[in-house]
Amino acid sequence: MSDGLRYENSGVNYDSLDAFKRFCQQAAATTREALAGSGYGEPRDVRGESAFLLEGMDHYLAHVEEGLGTKNLVADAMLALTGKSYYASIGIDTVATIVNDLITCGALPLSVAMHAAVGDGKWFDQPGRARELAEGFAEGCRQAQAIWGGGETPALKGIVSPDSIVLAGSAMGKIFPKSRRVLGNIAEGDAIVLLASSGVQTNGLSLCRLLAERLQDGYQTPMKDGRAYGQALLDPSAIYVKFVSACQHAGLQPHYLAHLTGHGWRKLMRPSQRFVYQMDNLGNVPEIFRFIMENGPVEVREAYATFNMGAGFAAYVDPADATQAVEIAQAQGYHAWIGGRVVQQDQRKAVELLPLGIIFDEQSLQVR
Amino acid sequence: MSDGLRYENSGVNYDSLDAFKRFCQQAAATTREALAGSGYGEPRDVRGESAFLLEGMDHYLAHVEEGLGTKNLVADAMLALTGKSYYASIGIDTVATIVNDLITCGALPLSVAMHAAVGDGKWFDQPGRARELAEGFAEGCRQAQAIWGGGETPALKGIVSPDSIVLAGSAMGKIFPKSRRVLGNIAEGDAIVLLASSGVQTNGLSLCRLLAERLQDGYQTPMKDGRAYGQALLDPSAIYVKFVSACQHAGLQPHYLAHLTGHGWRKLMRPSQRFVYQMDNLGNVPEIFRFIMENGPVEVREAYATFNMGAGFAAYVDPADATQAVEIAQAQGYHAWIGGRVVQQDQRKAVELLPLGIIFDEQSLQVR
Repeated sequence: MSDGLRYENSGVNYDSLDAFKRFCQQAAATTREALAGSGYGEPRDVRGESAFLLEGMDHYLAHVEEGLGTKNLVADAMLALTGKSYYASIGIDTVATIVNDLITCGALPLSVAMHAAVGDGKWFDQPGRARELAEGFAEGCRQAQAIWGGGETPALKGIVSPDSIVLAGSAMGKIFPKSRRVLGNIAEGDAIVLLASSGVQTNGLSLCRLLAERLQDGYQTPMKDGRAYGQALLDPSAIYVKFVSACQHAGLQPHYLAHLTGHGWRKLMRPSQRFVYQMDNLGNVPEIFRFIMENGPVEVREAYATFNMGAGFAAYVDPADATQAVEIAQAQGYHAWIGGRVVQQDQRKAVELLPLGIIFDEQSLQVR
Repeated sequence: MSDGLRYENSGVNYDSLDAFKRFCQQAAATTREALAGSGYGEPRDVRGESAFLLEGMDHYLAHVEEGLGTKNLVADAMLALTGKSYYASIGIDTVATIVNDLITCGALPLSVAMHAAVGDGKWFDQPGRARELAEGFAEGCRQAQAIWGGGETPALKGIVSPDSIVLAGSAMGKIFPKSRRVLGNIAEGDAIVLLASSGVQTNGLSLCRLLAERLQDGYQTPMKDGRAYGQALLDPSAIYVKFVSACQHAGLQPHYLAHLTGHGWRKLMRPSQRFVYQMDNLGNVPEIFRFIMENGPVEVREAYATFNMGAGFAAYVDPADATQAVEIAQAQGYHAWIGGRVVQQDQRKAVELLPLGIIFDEQSLQVR
């Protein structure tokens, strides 16, 4: 597979980043006592989770800062090629990447703020694009049942490329009552319910862009369903807030929730417990992933180690709750299915994709 | 003054940015009903303030997303010139720019999250720099009496310059009880108490960098006090949380609070009311500003329209509270003084710097 595509070859050096993240976590731990006397404190075991929590008397507050990544480079390329701006999608994606992390702890978002840093204020002069970005961000907030609460739009000449934009933001959320916190109390036999993604969503875009460079017609290469590759990449992300919200209203308490982004299906072993996560129903693989695998080429193992492959969110629930969880998701408009189960095998930790004979062992997920 | 320095010449195009900001505010307003039934709502008149608020039964939650701007380019230049990393200061600055906005509504920060987007993960390999950035951010959080609650550190190849970093973040805060909200109920005769800055803090850095390019010895040009220009630029920002917190504990309710950043002293007319803000004691001008004015050259009017000129935070208080506000600030280690007062002159709105004969009229502050 010497000329195939692998994520490590797509220009992202995770080693340095992960080392910095770990160092930040150490420094952050020194601030733990800062709220003494405020009525809030840092709960145990919150570091390293997808959302930060503060524990109050009868509730938790949740805080997430997240970034879109490089997906807007695809939108810029498509704008240049076709004249059509996909920035409404990009706005939704930006909200999705923030709130889909926030809800994994059981919090519901209250407010979402935008961070949009350009290299040159002229970025906003392009007709339509700036307006669509704002409208998409607002649409994302509505889907997330959250208020768009401000933001920041600096021009960072010399830091951000003159024709580009860094899109990111933050959310504030709440868990009330405290019993709705998702604690990660996974048990053997738990069902893993998967919710469909809309495509690549916000993950693996560096590899997707590298593939576009290799294709003769680039982003305009037609897929089997007739849509252009670049267009399919820009399908807006699914936002899973309504699923978590509806579970809470139905009294269904998930044991764990995972937003399947970086590290693809390896993320299924993000829980701290030493279980084997056996997946026997991988769901339908959207056309975009078949196209990427075929044209990269990207091996199927690498594809599942990198992309969501059609499953964007996972809920680990009591097996007795599994069917209801699927029904709740479907009632909210998500395609969902029981994808697998949690199995105890001594101290072994792994993700097994049974229909494909693929096993991701513990060493393949260095960062939670 | 054809060869002098003006902020408009330093590469920041505010027109496009401000238009986008206004458009975001319009789109954001369409999300106002998203929290129906959650127990939270958007308070009237919160849009356009420095912090977003959500109103609950007996408290407000506050949310701010903010960025450092371009100050880290100065730190990178000084690292290249001297081998010394100033990233501990940069970490403090990043927290300062976030929390000093948050507190203007009367909220105290609970958690602060970091956003650090690099163009290449190798940015974190530089010995010392990454560690100092993390330690500085933690120090900023301690000064802000807040917990460092996570963050995001993406590598954005093709968006962020390969040797640079976008530093930003967000804070979550709370106002409790609700009566501590700073409402902007300014009255004629109110005193304007000023708290000293530590230097340029995080504002006007584009102009400062332009000046470095014009100086023969650049950032290493010595100032009259013997320190290098670049070193003085990198003095860490003051964090004003302890002042606001101490006012609350003392039962002193400010009518308005302003973080003096972009637009310099013009920001003093940020309140919506039509008053004249007459400043008769401008305080001591730190050496760094004298150096910039002399070497730019930057005219004194332009300097006060751009920089904090030694005053980083303003509290508008009942005249009977003015002396106590100064004492509270001093007890917390801030240099503070009564800088001026609020005067009614029909419908006139302006900032007057009496000792300098400078008047900023309403048209000089287009954006609040």
